[in-house]
Amino acid sequence: MPRTNTDVSTDAPTDVLVVGGGIIGLATAWRTAQRGLSVTVLDPDPGRGANRVAAGMLAPVTELQYGEEELLRLGIASNERYAAFAAELTAASGLPTGYRACGTLAAALDADDRAELRELHAFQQRLGLEAEWLTGRECRRLEPMLAPSVRGGLLVTGDHQVDGRRLGAALLRACTAAGVRIHRSRAARIELTDAQDRVVGALAEDGTRLSAGQTVLAAGSWSGEVPGLPPEARLPVRPVKGQILRLRMTTSLGAPLPGGPFLSRNLRAVVRGVHLYLVPREDGELVVGATMEEQGFDTTVTAGGVYELLRDAHELVPGITELPLVETGAGLRPGTPDNAPLLGPTSLPGLVAATGHHRNGVLLTPVTADAVSAYLATGVLPPEAAPFTPARFSLLEASS
Amino acid sequence: MPRTNTDVSTDAPTDVLVVGGGIIGLATAWRTAQRGLSVTVLDPDPGRGANRVAAGMLAPVTELQYGEEELLRLGIASNERYAAFAAELTAASGLPTGYRACGTLAAALDADDRAELRELHAFQQRLGLEAEWLTGRECRRLEPMLAPSVRGGLLVTGDHQVDGRRLGAALLRACTAAGVRIHRSRAARIELTDAQDRVVGALAEDGTRLSAGQTVLAAGSWSGEVPGLPPEARLPVRPVKGQILRLRMTTSLGAPLPGGPFLSRNLRAVVRGVHLYLVPREDGELVVGATMEEQGFDTTVTAGGVYELLRDAHELVPGITELPLVETGAGLRPGTPDNAPLLGPTSLPGLVAATGHHRNGVLLTPVTADAVSAYLATGVLPPEAAPFTPARFSLLEASS
Repeated sequence: MPRTNTDVSTDAPTDVLVVGGGIIGLATAWRTAQRGLSVTVLDPDPGRGANRVAAGMLAPVTELQYGEEELLRLGIASNERYAAFAAELTAASGLPTGYRACGTLAAALDADDRAELRELHAFQQRLGLEAEWLTGRECRRLEPMLAPSVRGGLLVTGDHQVDGRRLGAALLRACTAAGVRIHRSRAARIELTDAQDRVVGALAEDGTRLSAGQTVLAAGSWSGEVPGLPPEARLPVRPVKGQILRLRMTTSLGAPLPGGPFLSRNLRAVVRGVHLYLVPREDGELVVGATMEEQGFDTTVTAGGVYELLRDAHELVPGITELPLVETGAGLRPGTPDNAPLLGPTSLPGLVAATGHHRNGVLLTPVTADAVSAYLATGVLPPEAAPFTPARFSLLEASS
Repeated sequence: MPRTNTDVSTDAPTDVLVVGGGIIGLATAWRTAQRGLSVTVLDPDPGRGANRVAAGMLAPVTELQYGEEELLRLGIASNERYAAFAAELTAASGLPTGYRACGTLAAALDADDRAELRELHAFQQRLGLEAEWLTGRECRRLEPMLAPSVRGGLLVTGDHQVDGRRLGAALLRACTAAGVRIHRSRAARIELTDAQDRVVGALAEDGTRLSAGQTVLAAGSWSGEVPGLPPEARLPVRPVKGQILRLRMTTSLGAPLPGGPFLSRNLRAVVRGVHLYLVPREDGELVVGATMEEQGFDTTVTAGGVYELLRDAHELVPGITELPLVETGAGLRPGTPDNAPLLGPTSLPGLVAATGHHRNGVLLTPVTADAVSAYLATGVLPPEAAPFTPARFSLLEASS
């Protein structure tokens, strides 16, 4: 037992302490509790991390990038589990997740976009992925609100969506129902043994010492900043700012729009080299995102960020001008040097990573929770997560 | 005394009942109380009318329109009183008004704008108004953040600004300090004598009957809708929607921007035929407005409204992209058929108008309050307000 003093109280030790109660931390805690381990989550405002501003696209095939085939496989694995994950979560929590198997259309506005999408399509075909090329006319038949200038597109019927906010609320409820303890405070520091050779829990800002056999670092963009870790154990995570808009696909009086749905599926485009997406939810919300900005921990909504999103969305779907703009927001994606997450054991015994998901946190939630909880319970990281241990960066450094 | 029943309570009669506690209603109530009359204001949320979303430009010379010379004279009269009005209001209330004698620069972005501004300048000179023509270079010397494409402009050193929100709060405080009774409810209807030949007060939605010798209709955009008036006494007021943005002229961390003020004076422009203004306040707020939309009583903020304001403001002052966007809003201007206010006696004895100020409510507050309170106290409308009685519309109808 750690020593106590007058300012520090000590909670009963748990098997697992999860530092950070965003959707990654909560899903990991839920899955870990299902495996019979005792779990505590440390977060001042659980369920409300970067998921609050996420669009919730589940689009590994549409968002495929060259050189990220391993990440693609992880994304596809997670996407394939999503329907069952969402159903189980709703059964456990009694809450909806907004999961919607709607498919995604990626549209090209000019000849350059078209060439880029054609190349993406060829790459998808080489990898055996399902994606269908459509003419501009075919795109507009699927989505009549598309601009007349759309020259073609890719229909990916397997890329879907979920509602990041509903997901957070459902996970929090499922966690408490599964016996996870939620400690509402911030981590003041990670705690190590006196010999500094093992993580033994964390000290909360409210003065509580939370001891645990294993500690999961799931602090999103702050995962590289949590005090207490020796420099060589720090995770290479940085914040990548994203601004996002929420519109309503209703008349100003709140009624459904006449003439059918405004958009029926996720819509993506590259506008002047910038990736844009519009995610229409079943409840009438339309999320438009997102900027990518290297601004440190700044979450200011700027005139320029909102302007660029509206300008590009207006170019792709001119009819958005009539829609109510109900919210603007900014969040921080936990970026890593290779845009892939950090999963599983770290260089420090007792410390496990579940962070660095960058733009894919919502998509990768099921596979992350499955893999990290399996590691916590069995000591073995499942093969789909093996390429993503933090060791890949220390190895790089050692060899340079 | 009016009869009472179980649902209706009756307040002690006052000399004057003001229906509507926006800045026009409150300023009129304040000035009327200063003349020794007893005054009640009826409003569910006084001090928070269209002034909540007004930019607060005091710019009769810059906003001069052909055919509106009488309105110009009224605007100039009000503008000349503003410094003293603001000082007296601050002394009476202990609250700031944000009055700032900063001047206004009207900028031209292209050859068409330049020609239009040149014409405005010639018209101003014919009327003996003070306005100085500047080259694009001279404009940028005054306001270094202006776009390089600005081709010239008009400097009007007498057109200033005030903060509509602070004005509302100060007027409310000054009213209560002057003994004005504030009745926090909405007008259910205007009440007339049984013979329908005289207004005797109003019934509030909370069931209170407010009797008064004279009733002032100062209900902004709703002035044509208040129930109880015979059709021929209805005022020709309609809502004209305006959307507006509030930015901050600070870094994202809240610090002042390096390199001097972002803007030093009001900035106006015509961008693609649309009037745009940027009003920089001393507290760091930058108001960008405003759309003009005939949408009935709709106050939805739309993607298109915000987009157009940001697009046009960005064209005039590219550096706004870096500024935090802290608020979007929409309000309703009380429009009239000739864009001029309705001041003084109506066709119905006991009913006095102080409404229909359209885009000039903030500017015309001092002169409206002076004129209407004079009429209430003496029965004589001062000459500057005489062209603006509602009678001008009934005369038109009678002669057509």
